[in-house]
Amino acid sequence: MAHRTPHPLSSLTEAETKQARDIILRSSPAEVIQFRMIFREEPEKALLVPFLALEHSGKLLPDSPRPPRLAAVHYVRAHQAPDRKADEVEATVDLNRGQVVKKTVVGTEFLAGLSTWEFDILVDKCKNSKLFQDRIAQFRLPEGFDVVIEPWPYGGMDQPGNVRRYFQGLVYAIDTRSQNPDSNFYAYPLPVIPVMDFEKREIVRIDELATGGAGDSLIPLGPRTGSIIDHCEPAEYVPELLPRGTRKDLKPLSVIQPEGPSFAVTDESLIEWQKWRFRVSFNPREGAVIHDVHFDGRSVLYRLSISEMTVPYADPRPPFQRKQAFDFGDGGIGHAVNSLDLGCDCLGVIKYFDGVLVDHEGTPEKASRVICLHEQDNGIGWKHTNWRTGRAVTVRRRELVVQFIITLANYEYIFNYKFDQTGAINVETRATGIVSVVNIDAGKTAPWGTVVSPGALAQNHQHIFCVRIDPAVDGHKNTVVQNDSIPLRIDARTNPYGNLYEVRDTPLLTSTGVDACPDTNRIFKIQNLDKKNPVSGRPVGFKINPPPTQRILADPASTQARRAFFAKHHLWVTKYRDGELYAAGDYPLSSKVEAGGVADMVARNDDLLQEDVVLWSCFGLTHNPRVEDWPVMPVEIMELHISPVDFFTENPAIDVPSSKNNESKLTNGCCAQPKL
Amino acid sequence: MAHRTPHPLSSLTEAETKQARDIILRSSPAEVIQFRMIFREEPEKALLVPFLALEHSGKLLPDSPRPPRLAAVHYVRAHQAPDRKADEVEATVDLNRGQVVKKTVVGTEFLAGLSTWEFDILVDKCKNSKLFQDRIAQFRLPEGFDVVIEPWPYGGMDQPGNVRRYFQGLVYAIDTRSQNPDSNFYAYPLPVIPVMDFEKREIVRIDELATGGAGDSLIPLGPRTGSIIDHCEPAEYVPELLPRGTRKDLKPLSVIQPEGPSFAVTDESLIEWQKWRFRVSFNPREGAVIHDVHFDGRSVLYRLSISEMTVPYADPRPPFQRKQAFDFGDGGIGHAVNSLDLGCDCLGVIKYFDGVLVDHEGTPEKASRVICLHEQDNGIGWKHTNWRTGRAVTVRRRELVVQFIITLANYEYIFNYKFDQTGAINVETRATGIVSVVNIDAGKTAPWGTVVSPGALAQNHQHIFCVRIDPAVDGHKNTVVQNDSIPLRIDARTNPYGNLYEVRDTPLLTSTGVDACPDTNRIFKIQNLDKKNPVSGRPVGFKINPPPTQRILADPASTQARRAFFAKHHLWVTKYRDGELYAAGDYPLSSKVEAGGVADMVARNDDLLQEDVVLWSCFGLTHNPRVEDWPVMPVEIMELHISPVDFFTENPAIDVPSSKNNESKLTNGCCAQPKL
Repeated sequence: MAHRTPHPLSSLTEAETKQARDIILRSSPAEVIQFRMIFREEPEKALLVPFLALEHSGKLLPDSPRPPRLAAVHYVRAHQAPDRKADEVEATVDLNRGQVVKKTVVGTEFLAGLSTWEFDILVDKCKNSKLFQDRIAQFRLPEGFDVVIEPWPYGGMDQPGNVRRYFQGLVYAIDTRSQNPDSNFYAYPLPVIPVMDFEKREIVRIDELATGGAGDSLIPLGPRTGSIIDHCEPAEYVPELLPRGTRKDLKPLSVIQPEGPSFAVTDESLIEWQKWRFRVSFNPREGAVIHDVHFDGRSVLYRLSISEMTVPYADPRPPFQRKQAFDFGDGGIGHAVNSLDLGCDCLGVIKYFDGVLVDHEGTPEKASRVICLHEQDNGIGWKHTNWRTGRAVTVRRRELVVQFIITLANYEYIFNYKFDQTGAINVETRATGIVSVVNIDAGKTAPWGTVVSPGALAQNHQHIFCVRIDPAVDGHKNTVVQNDSIPLRIDARTNPYGNLYEVRDTPLLTSTGVDACPDTNRIFKIQNLDKKNPVSGRPVGFKINPPPTQRILADPASTQARRAFFAKHHLWVTKYRDGELYAAGDYPLSSKVEAGGVADMVARNDDLLQEDVVLWSCFGLTHNPRVEDWPVMPVEIMELHISPVDFFTENPAIDVPSSKNNESKLTNGCCAQPKL
Repeated sequence: MAHRTPHPLSSLTEAETKQARDIILRSSPAEVIQFRMIFREEPEKALLVPFLALEHSGKLLPDSPRPPRLAAVHYVRAHQAPDRKADEVEATVDLNRGQVVKKTVVGTEFLAGLSTWEFDILVDKCKNSKLFQDRIAQFRLPEGFDVVIEPWPYGGMDQPGNVRRYFQGLVYAIDTRSQNPDSNFYAYPLPVIPVMDFEKREIVRIDELATGGAGDSLIPLGPRTGSIIDHCEPAEYVPELLPRGTRKDLKPLSVIQPEGPSFAVTDESLIEWQKWRFRVSFNPREGAVIHDVHFDGRSVLYRLSISEMTVPYADPRPPFQRKQAFDFGDGGIGHAVNSLDLGCDCLGVIKYFDGVLVDHEGTPEKASRVICLHEQDNGIGWKHTNWRTGRAVTVRRRELVVQFIITLANYEYIFNYKFDQTGAINVETRATGIVSVVNIDAGKTAPWGTVVSPGALAQNHQHIFCVRIDPAVDGHKNTVVQNDSIPLRIDARTNPYGNLYEVRDTPLLTSTGVDACPDTNRIFKIQNLDKKNPVSGRPVGFKINPPPTQRILADPASTQARRAFFAKHHLWVTKYRDGELYAAGDYPLSSKVEAGGVADMVARNDDLLQEDVVLWSCFGLTHNPRVEDWPVMPVEIMELHISPVDFFTENPAIDVPSSKNNESKLTNGCCAQPKL
């Protein structure tokens, strides 16, 4: 690797990002451009695969052919001709050739993903809107309270006609008397939602919110005025505002790695650890993406990413049907990504990766520490005691974690790609943050939510994630096989004692959406039918256990459900096409219906037998809040397991040392004083 | 607590155990007694509850009434009169009064649980059985191979008439040429099963095992003789026998607690940690048991235990229908419990608890370190970033783990009761160890198992656990409420946009078996209907999420299924009765049908509304082995979550400090050398 050309899978550098911007600006002298995002465009698979094959075989030369280095540049283009409306462009810039090689204008039936600078405009317009300020004045907020606007995507556009570039704001009051800007304003929800028409840059409407409960009208009986938060109570979470401070009886627990980590990071993006070898990149739509995953020299995955998620809310009162986030697709996770803190977000010896984001002028900004990489101990990995001799062999389970975290207004999501020594990859999601609340009258309750704090109703909702798995199990031609364990009746000839059950393999022959089925212990194997395990005689493979979680609840005829077809099945299997990365399509922002998502991909009815298949695993959490979720909710953890099944000829962790950790200590347990 | 009387929930001491034995021996001068187990008998709830109430109110005095200190003593009683058969006795000894207060003879329709000294007799009888030795000789094992007998319960007795005290041995060959007694003999299975009639102390039969595969007869076509393991291959797991040794590139990772643990252990059994207060005891039937669980002074659970598990095997060829372990009920976990190792089974600062077991003479033996108690970090516990200010508050998730581990012949089970700072208790099971294999002819495969090593077929099987939860949510009168999230149709009046779903509560009014239902996100709340949460207005409660795993697959008419009715539902709810602790009844050993288990308890049709309810959560793993499970399988992890729902008025972990861990280090990741 004498060449200093970036690896095709490494993220764009700041310099490359700037170069892409400059090329766009140069190519569009007559236009006023506002940038949304610039990131490395995924190489064509047909070009990248041969490159990777050369690389893995050790035959890569400086002049070996490589895919062009491409930047995807998304921007708004305003024209100098006053009669031409601004439009949204997605351009591809070839950085090697220094030119724009493709320009696509986003159709007017879609909205391009939002940018946080649009949110800033919403906040600004609210501040300067007489309509809005007059409305707020009618609440006569108590002395010391200010208004906070929480910008949100507008949600599903259920009016007739084309989608409009609307944004909405949830509105809260903040108690400024502590002079602490982190006082928790969510405890004081105000029952109005200003709506901005972005093209007009104007607050065009203020939606009034009902504040009643069970049995009350779904529609507000006229605007609520007067004191609206008098029955609300503080709900602080920053330690300096906690009424009783933080507890004192938690002793420190540290993770020490005196010899450093067991991983190596080279070539910007290449990670090697415990027989694993893969690359990580960052982009503003998907966050951390895992590429070109090998174990012990054998190919496992081509690409692994969080493709999409949707969070539909179930309060039937208008306009709450429009509370439905697509936290990856609405505008990418971009500026929502957290800069991670040593000793807070991860313990031990940490390697951080920075990302690159852009502002509206396309100026690259380093997004510091958006991905962290670390090892963790997760209990016992395998153990056996020979009871005859008393000899125990106990091996700990070490994991390598690639973590990123996003903050979307009130909520946080933590994503962990966890690699272990047994050849398994577990994709973990943790939902935390502050549940979304609306104002409710004193003393009332409602069936569509939980009063988590006086005056604050946390609405029932779901979180449905989609993990995209592009496998390459010993090659790119793979087959997905549904595997069920099915009870059998007693049969004198085949099952005389009734203890047999059938393990049935059903290959998925054409693209399809399928579901988990715990009653048959359903798993899905990703097999390479051309390669047999020499021990078991079965095709080599990996399996996924789709978590059997509740699918989207909204009525199939509702806009919520129609925008999120992907959430209707636990697993979709499609045939690979370049550019198909997003489960709900490229443009879910304010969509009326999912377009270009997995349902459309499946509708091609592609053959899947020993083809280049892609799996989309959808799972989630129906979250009917509890009081304990307030003011910040404890993590709700979900995991998707991707593990080898007859891929190896033995437990790949059998050679992990069972050495005793000498830093562990005995205690008689009687000396601590846990009480305050 | 000036009194030095043991707490009613502390395990029996060695001295008390000896005292119980001596009382039995003194009370039975004319009998020859062989002991099975001696342990603290669970106090009558009606006596213990007032004692605990006094204790928690701080009003306990040295002379306050307390439940009698009772020992349960199980033994075999041989009579001097030659015409009286030996019988099995379960006696209760009152240690305060120094006398036997109850003696029950186990009915001849049942078998008392087995003792490991019976296994020793099986092994001894095989060694001295000409029948068995002649049979083994016919295999003409290669030079350097010896025979190993793996004693097993006989399994379901499907002959007519009463159950007989039979045991069986799985038979393997061990390669002695390495002179290492921990060479893995499971790689060399021999196709015979000797059967011992325990009463006769004699090998009465040798069952021949079929060694064919798919398409072959289920019945062996005559005994296999001659070389039977020539096609088998070594499968070592002890590090000194690994052909390529252990890997060298795993750097140490230590957990350091410089200020000691955050827990305190006092009064032998009392554990206090992070607002939790509970007791732990050990007994030879259930292992570690959790008692009298309080959080922040409020009662949560009366008792929590692993009640039972069953492992039915699905190979249809006789006699494999009899491969069905009840690893808690067959004989208790007693001598199967592991003595835990510092730095291997747990990291950090560890408190160990010893147990007491007895030998066949009733002599107490200290079982060292059978339970370990430690803290662990489990990632982020809650987090919120205010994107306006950039202020992040990140709190780690600390857990307190009560762990015990058992080895049952080839398999290991790791049980973790995990308490966290959010008021939740998670019961974790990890299955590991060596999968059970039988001999298979070279080159064959079979639909009822996986060839995991040449000549070794790992049979498909299930592991179904039952966790017994005896709640006391703010008192002992509780109600179990099924909670479903149910989709609704668009309705102009109630659901105009189709986003509403119904959250439906259905109290369980009478004792019943119910099932998980991911399609409705079903959870079960354990509520105290007499107490409302002041914020939400809903009854205070805890919820359990029954894992939606596959129930028992065996035909309902089969002996396997009839022995394990408990495995037919995910959750059973019964009304409390003293002495009802075991989901499959007291005597599953070689049973033909479950007797006195949860199905029988449920059949009483007891009222459950605001009663003293008990929940039995059954979940498991359908294990169709993969080659990667060989020679020792990576842990398969399952978790049962018990968490507060509207029990508290906020996240109980909101006051956990978000302090930064200062021992964490940065790395640029480029200096490690992970390659060998």
